[in-house]
Parts: sequence; structure tokens; C-alpha cells
Amino acid sequence: MPMTGPTSMAAVVECVPNFSEGRRKEVVDKIVYSIQSAPGIKVLNVEMDPDHNRLVVTFTGNRENVQEGAFRGARAASELIDLNKHKGQHPRMGALDVLPFVPISGVTLEDCVEIANKVGARIAKELKIPVYLYESAAKKPERANLENVRRGEFEGLRVAILTDESKYPDYGPRMLHPTAGAVAVGARMPLIAFNVNLKSTDVKIAKEIAKKIRASNGGLPKVKALGFALEARGMVQVSMNLTDYTVTPIAKVFEAIAKEADGKGVEIAESEIIGLVPLDAVCDLAAKYLKIGQFSSDQVLERRIWG
Amino acid sequence: MPMTGPTSMAAVVECVPNFSEGRRKEVVDKIVYSIQSAPGIKVLNVEMDPDHNRLVVTFTGNRENVQEGAFRGARAASELIDLNKHKGQHPRMGALDVLPFVPISGVTLEDCVEIANKVGARIAKELKIPVYLYESAAKKPERANLENVRRGEFEGLRVAILTDESKYPDYGPRMLHPTAGAVAVGARMPLIAFNVNLKSTDVKIAKEIAKKIRASNGGLPKVKALGFALEARGMVQVSMNLTDYTVTPIAKVFEAIAKEADGKGVEIAESEIIGLVPLDAVCDLAAKYLKIGQFSSDQVLERRIWG
Repeated sequence: MPMTGPTSMAAVVECVPNFSEGRRKEVVDKIVYSIQSAPGIKVLNVEMDPDHNRLVVTFTGNRENVQEGAFRGARAASELIDLNKHKGQHPRMGALDVLPFVPISGVTLEDCVEIANKVGARIAKELKIPVYLYESAAKKPERANLENVRRGEFEGLRVAILTDESKYPDYGPRMLHPTAGAVAVGARMPLIAFNVNLKSTDVKIAKEIAKKIRASNGGLPKVKALGFALEARGMVQVSMNLTDYTVTPIAKVFEAIAKEADGKGVEIAESEIIGLVPLDAVCDLAAKYLKIGQFSSDQVLERRIWG
Repeated sequence: MPMTGPTSMAAVVECVPNFSEGRRKEVVDKIVYSIQSAPGIKVLNVEMDPDHNRLVVTFTGNRENVQEGAFRGARAASELIDLNKHKGQHPRMGALDVLPFVPISGVTLEDCVEIANKVGARIAKELKIPVYLYESAAKKPERANLENVRRGEFEGLRVAILTDESKYPDYGPRMLHPTAGAVAVGARMPLIAFNVNLKSTDVKIAKEIAKKIRASNGGLPKVKALGFALEARGMVQVSMNLTDYTVTPIAKVFEAIAKEADGKGVEIAESEIIGLVPLDAVCDLAAKYLKIGQFSSDQVLERRIWG
């Protein structure tokens, strides 16, 4: 029998490198082409920002291909960008500045930490660029926060890396690459931008609820939240970033806001998901609505075709 | 710039041909290989049933490829299967017996009707096999129901097609192919098998609710429903097939059952989706749960990668 069952699901890792070049189109093109030249890579998005003088590429591949694509992007950037000549509004320390790996499907965050380590070690060894591991890949707790890693930027780190032990890289030489600087390599979960709009014109209500639910005030873990007025629409908004939907699912956030709003006598008007959302997070919501105990994204027809 | 935005979504058509061969493995293999030999075809499932002496293949492709895959399967079956020698429990009239096309993504049911017509005309012309169009592709209302089309089977239709005007095919000769018989070619929406389990041991409640909501008793269109006892689990079940989730979405069915159950003082314990479900149906549920006005399956991250 040629086939007797559904096909196995391919692992998908997303990579979102940020490069310090957003003005010279021929350089941007070469970097993107170098990523695409690796086998099995799919480039989903390219954002070239002249003000920030910064390039953000979003691409995917399996465990192996995504490493090769990331390395080729790093190599191209180190050949084409000279940070000594780079100016822009966005803080930066490297030609390839940050390199996060994100688990999408068939891989875990731990897998992405391993990938970050492998790619980081290779960049350090072959390109002679110091590598700092950040977010979930961080080996030192203070490096989980990218701001701490990048503090001082290219110009400041040039000295600090030589003299300040806390600035020693996780991989590679204890000195900046003369033109490509240093790179932060990390792993993180996909972000979900989620807003809940309330039938009220009192922005205090949205701000109070945001304060109550956000992680930084002891609320729901992995939730960032702010309150805004939507004046043209006569509503207020709790605007959120969910930084790990497997820790705090969208449904849990929604229910928490519904409860808080109810306590204040305010109704939920609607929600919004801005941009992209992982399939598993959508399936989780469908299961909640229908009270389905066991519902897996493997049951989504398109996943059998595409995955 | 090599790419500036998300990639366009590929059209996906599913095809589920049923062949009159479920015992000779070498014949089954040749039929499946002939389908797979067409460009861009993905075979998702192969079910070979010796009792029914029947083969069901599930495969997908874009608008053009799915036609070529279906035709190659039809041709292989006409070369390898002699219905004069076929015995099995399942009613059948052709070597390739039924050939439904199902819209999954980026195509409509109307597109699939057009595909059914094109493939049907080609099978008739090149293989000299009479073709009956059924379900949504039916040109005569009585042929919407496959049972009507297939009545009499291979043996009975051999005579009827010659003499009974109501048995004249939509395409091809007014006589059966001597060994391959005739084929029913159609278009339909994906089926969703959906069950709602109630916290009750009284099967009457499930049967009453099933009767109330099913299309055949004037309930929700495109819903088939039966009531069952789940004795081992101490629950009763409303068991359903949703034959067009774009006409009656899962959420609407769930809400209708919740209302009926509430009227009888019974709670919903849980739901089940059996087998596969289209992504759009899952997104619809997620949007309902969160009260999202605008939520498209285009926002599902994996769709950008796979679609």
C-alpha cells in the first residue's frame, strides 16, 4: 500500500532576524536572497525600515534548514554591513543584531533553545562574532532581557566587552567584530497581540483591568496589558501582548477580563486578534467554546494537507 | 525586494474517489500510484475494505492537478477492474464508482461543480464510460441523491441505460462500459461529524433534541442528527453530520442544542468532533468565543507557511 494513514507533521521553526540595514535596497535584497538560498526555507515577510535603518525578515524552516538559513543571513550581513557607518533610531549592537527562534509546530521552546545554541556557536566560530544568548536561551538570568544585553550598543560594547566580565559573550571572542559587532541569539514563544474592547467610555476602567491582569502587577503570567480609550468608537480597550499562550491561553485572559468587567458592571463589546496567531491557540478557543475535552490541531483538515 | 508580504494562498480541492476493488492489493497499489503520478497531488488516506470489496482514496491538489489525478485514477480503474467479476456488500455501478470533489481552501462549491463537469466530460470522452452528475453537481434534481443514481447497480443499469430515458447519462455513451460500468461524479462540502453529550441517562431527551434540530424534521438546514445512549459513560448523545458548515456553522448547532437542553433542565457535558474539520470552521468557533467580528483563517500563522 503506498500510504495507509495521514502523513506525519513537519516540524516548523520560525526565525525573525533583525539586521542593521533599512536603507540600501541592494544590501537588503542580498541578505534576503542569502537566507532563501538555504534549502527548505520559506520567507514569509520582509520589513525594511529606513527610519530605524533596520531590516526584519520572518522566515520558517525545519530544525536543520532554519539553522542554515539563519547562518547564511548572519554571514551575508557580516560581509555587507559596517556598523561603524550605521545610523538609525533603533538601538543595535550588530550587523545581524538579534536572532530569535520561535517554535510553531512539532517543536518545543526547548528545541529552539538548542537551535539558538547551535547557530550561536557556529556564528561565533566561523564568523568570529561574539554571541549573547537572550530570552529563553539566556544562560545568565540578566540576559533574558534583550535591553540588558544590548545596553551600550555597538559603540559602548566595544570597550565593555574587553574589560567588564558581565559583558563576556556566551560564545566567541571577547571582542567585538570590527564591522559586524555582536549578535543576540535567542528563543521565545510566538507573540499574540490581543485586544478586548469594552462598552464604556471611561478609560480608567480599561486601565484598572489592564493593571489587574498583567504579569508585572502579579496578574496572569506572560501577559502584558495596557488600557486605552478608543474615542472614535466610543469604547475603551484592554490592549495586550501574550508572550506565551501555552502558559496563559487566550481563553483564560478573555475570561479574566470578562470577570473584572462584570464586577465593574461593564460589558465586553468585542475582541481583536492583531496579526498572526498560532493554530494551536485557535484550536484551544474552539475547544473551549464547544466544551471539547480532546481537540488537537491534528484534526484540522488543512494541517493534513500542508503540515 | 525579494518579498514584501505574505504569500498568496494556494487553492486546495479534496477528491475522495471510491473504487470497486478492496481485495487485490496489487490493483489497489496501481490505482493509488496512478493518482499520485499526477503533479502536485497529496494522498492523505487510503482505505482498502475487503468486505465491501471497495477502495476509498482521499487526495488533494489545486484546481488543475486534482482533475488530472482523478482522471488517472479513473483510467487505471477502467484498465484493472472488471465489474463482471466483482462481488461485495457495497452497492456499486462502476470500476471507479463515485468521484466527489470537495472545496477545502481558496475554492468554492461552485468551482468543484465545474471541476466535476470537466473531469466527467473527459472520462466520458476518453474512456467511453457514461457519467452521472450527483449531489451539488446534479443537473437533474433526482440525481442529487446518489442512491437514485446507483439504483439497479452495474447489472441492472446495463439494460436500463439503453431503454429508460431517466437513466441516460449526463456525459458519454448511452450504454455501460463493458467492464468499467458507469461513474457518478459530484461536488459536495466537507462533512463534519459532531456530537454533543448531555448530562442525562434518558435517551429520549437526546432523541427529542435530535429530532428538533435536524433538517429532515424542519430544523437546521444541512444537519443530520440522531439521539443515542452512551451507557458506559452515563450520558446521552446527540450525534450529527453537518453537511455544509457554511450554511449551518458548528456554533449555531451547539447553541441550538444548548437551548433545547436548557429547556429540558439538562446540562451539556462536552462535545466531540470526530475526524477532520476544516480550518475555517475552527476559526469561526474561536471568533464566537472571543466575540471577534473579523477573524479570518488567513490570520493563522501556519496557513502563511503551508497555504
